[in-house]
Amino acid sequence: MSYNITSLNELAAQFERLPGIGKKTALRLSYFILEQPPERAKRFAEALVNAREKIHFCETCQALTDEDKCSICADENRDRSVICVVENPKDIMAFERTREYKGLYHVLHGAISPLDGIGPDKLKIKELMSRLADGTVTEVIMATNPTVEGEATASYISRLLKPMGIKISRLAYGIPVGGELEYADEVTLSRALDGRNEI
Amino acid sequence: MSYNITSLNELAAQFERLPGIGKKTALRLSYFILEQPPERAKRFAEALVNAREKIHFCETCQALTDEDKCSICADENRDRSVICVVENPKDIMAFERTREYKGLYHVLHGAISPLDGIGPDKLKIKELMSRLADGTVTEVIMATNPTVEGEATASYISRLLKPMGIKISRLAYGIPVGGELEYADEVTLSRALDGRNEI
Repeated sequence: MSYNITSLNELAAQFERLPGIGKKTALRLSYFILEQPPERAKRFAEALVNAREKIHFCETCQALTDEDKCSICADENRDRSVICVVENPKDIMAFERTREYKGLYHVLHGAISPLDGIGPDKLKIKELMSRLADGTVTEVIMATNPTVEGEATASYISRLLKPMGIKISRLAYGIPVGGELEYADEVTLSRALDGRNEI
Repeated sequence: MSYNITSLNELAAQFERLPGIGKKTALRLSYFILEQPPERAKRFAEALVNAREKIHFCETCQALTDEDKCSICADENRDRSVICVVENPKDIMAFERTREYKGLYHVLHGAISPLDGIGPDKLKIKELMSRLADGTVTEVIMATNPTVEGEATASYISRLLKPMGIKISRLAYGIPVGGELEYADEVTLSRALDGRNEI
């Protein structure tokens, strides 16, 4: 019988389930927990259960929140005439980091992908449609990912919205700022050419 | 007010306390937890509290265990005449991986370091001495780290044990197997020269 500590192994196994954490790191993190005061481990455990139990989808935009409405939907200062449609809750953080966008969001929680069995009915599209009913929203920005699935989703929703007379836009394609042309892939580059602006 | 989810931030803050986990990874791991079924988060939380509460020092060798005695001290097949003295519980795993060593261990939980205020009294040296009292142990292998502190600790303990007539050994210094001589530091190399064996 070799050196074996059941509850340490169990903790390491839990860490190893996390993405990007291998066997060695999992063990290192477990030892770190053992070296900390017990209150620390308890606080970590509470944060885990708390987050998982309290966080749910915002009743309006389907973003993650631990309140009734998310902090963006609840914010009186946001522009209620624009909705930016994204695939995942994380995408909201990316937009918020720009400090440019002042409108609202709508999270689809995925993209149409027939191969994975994800049809439009699996996404929060119904919820988006009902937000557009009262005429407050004048523009919908399709900010799904620049992938086949994201594109398909964007064009599916656009077709739904067209008859409602709402302005629909899509994020611009082009070369990333700070990138080097040398490394730009040919699809991105030809999109950047297509979308060129007079200066 | 920007996008803000209190319980998500708290969870991310807990992940960020772990060594080698930065802001971005902490957030990524937190989102991962949210995407898992609630039972998973609960099981992770239980493993954290469980490990921290159950694991304590083995009453004999001071290694980590969740039983009264660690699995090595409890193992009837280990050679009870040799004790390998290490600084940290993790060092035991390294020795066990060799599958060579069949004796027992003793964990000091640190090394003598006057600059950090760690004197011999802060280490589990008393506990080591009491294990040697009944004469079962005939050899003590000093396997503290090859650092200034580890060396000081090894020689301090050696001086204590000398009068007891117990054989004391120190791990061999030399070039690491599989390493390249080109990259060996001069201290290691001169130690390897000093310790050269006839072939």
